[in-house]
Amino acid sequence: MGLRLIPLKIRVLHPGDDLLEAVLEALKEGNLKLRDGDVLAVSSKAVSIAQKRLAKLEDVKPGDEALKLASMYDLEPNFAEIVLREADRVLGGARGALLTLKDGTLTANAGVDQKNAPSGYAVLPPKDPADFSRKIRVEVFKRTGKKVAVMIVDSRVTPLRMGTVGYALAVSGFKPVVDLRFKRDLFGRKVRITRHSVADDLSSAAHLLMGETDERNAVVLIRDAPIDLVDEEFDSSMNIKPEECLFMSSLLKKLEEGKEG
Amino acid sequence: MGLRLIPLKIRVLHPGDDLLEAVLEALKEGNLKLRDGDVLAVSSKAVSIAQKRLAKLEDVKPGDEALKLASMYDLEPNFAEIVLREADRVLGGARGALLTLKDGTLTANAGVDQKNAPSGYAVLPPKDPADFSRKIRVEVFKRTGKKVAVMIVDSRVTPLRMGTVGYALAVSGFKPVVDLRFKRDLFGRKVRITRHSVADDLSSAAHLLMGETDERNAVVLIRDAPIDLVDEEFDSSMNIKPEECLFMSSLLKKLEEGKEG
Repeated sequence: MGLRLIPLKIRVLHPGDDLLEAVLEALKEGNLKLRDGDVLAVSSKAVSIAQKRLAKLEDVKPGDEALKLASMYDLEPNFAEIVLREADRVLGGARGALLTLKDGTLTANAGVDQKNAPSGYAVLPPKDPADFSRKIRVEVFKRTGKKVAVMIVDSRVTPLRMGTVGYALAVSGFKPVVDLRFKRDLFGRKVRITRHSVADDLSSAAHLLMGETDERNAVVLIRDAPIDLVDEEFDSSMNIKPEECLFMSSLLKKLEEGKEG
Repeated sequence: MGLRLIPLKIRVLHPGDDLLEAVLEALKEGNLKLRDGDVLAVSSKAVSIAQKRLAKLEDVKPGDEALKLASMYDLEPNFAEIVLREADRVLGGARGALLTLKDGTLTANAGVDQKNAPSGYAVLPPKDPADFSRKIRVEVFKRTGKKVAVMIVDSRVTPLRMGTVGYALAVSGFKPVVDLRFKRDLFGRKVRITRHSVADDLSSAAHLLMGETDERNAVVLIRDAPIDLVDEEFDSSMNIKPEECLFMSSLLKKLEEGKEG
């Protein structure tokens, strides 16, 4: 009854390790058998480690832009350089972080992170997370016969709000956003603008159990989630364009006004 | 094992109904007994209905500002007027919604919503949600002897992202944000900037089961959540100041540059 989230105690991963193998081991140790419709929520950091997406800080030579940003926002210059390389655009920053655009997503530090990275390294965001999530899903089916979905979970900050929450970097096997715009509400009135980001809500739930420091729950098994299985994967399709975005369109308008005034 | 979320089938609420009574009935019908540490996640809409926070659209006379915003963003003028009255500030808008600041939170339409409202009415955001959540928590203890926490869940949109997710409008009984800044990561390195918004993650999880249209799950029972019970309530303390915010500080800087250039 209801939704269940079970953190899997997977072993500490080393660069290049087989993530799925570690997950299957953890399931076995936990006496858990996958079922059709289960969702495996995997932390983006675990994916990056499996993909060997690490940068050695001392090998990086910061350029002028990195030096400037590092001094403006109190960052290590080498770290700022790595962020610049990963980001599609840097939009600004606050003490300790740069606001970046990467693959249509607004994110802190372009997803580059030193937390839980081996000493002297920064962890880069996963490469092609949608493809990775699909491969895990297909391989799970081959090895267990179960139709699961896979979600890669990262953390984000939101405007004027304290603390990080989880969101879906990529999804394979279910529709991440449910369009309610043509449904009717309790009173039969047509719903006008609401779409529900099922994947981001689910990712937040998983993020809660993954922890942000030393909890080691890199994978969470989600059971009885309200999802519709589809044979597809998603990443940037979960984003909207700036002109459709309540925040960005307001911001863009204010910027134009600022220029005029 | 793990985290469980159980949607409660509470009856359709009418303005002024006793929300806690409806919750206790639903628990009884579901053969569920509260336990210490359980969290009751209540949709903000259910709280508004219980508080009779409704505005009759035809009773509202739109002023000039409302007429202007309504035509700019394709809204009903009466609805725009109600939003203006609830908002502390309107920052902009996109088709169908205004971006507003209310009690330090960035929100669409100042939390005013016509979805699942009785015909001809708009539902206003709850009044003093932290106090309401405390009262529910205290009353649950009086009536059942159980130390639960209570969370009021609303939905929000996030920049450049499709679809709504849940967030905590108010929390009573647990610390909504866990500060990890002085903890150490897996490798013993000090974590620099991360705070984890446990309440927002939990609210997203509950929001998933509340649904956005006719699902009627206005209350979700959350069991075995990773929370620390405290005898306190929170609402605007979950916010940060614009100058500490990665998005807003970047925006403010861009605005200054715009004015100069």
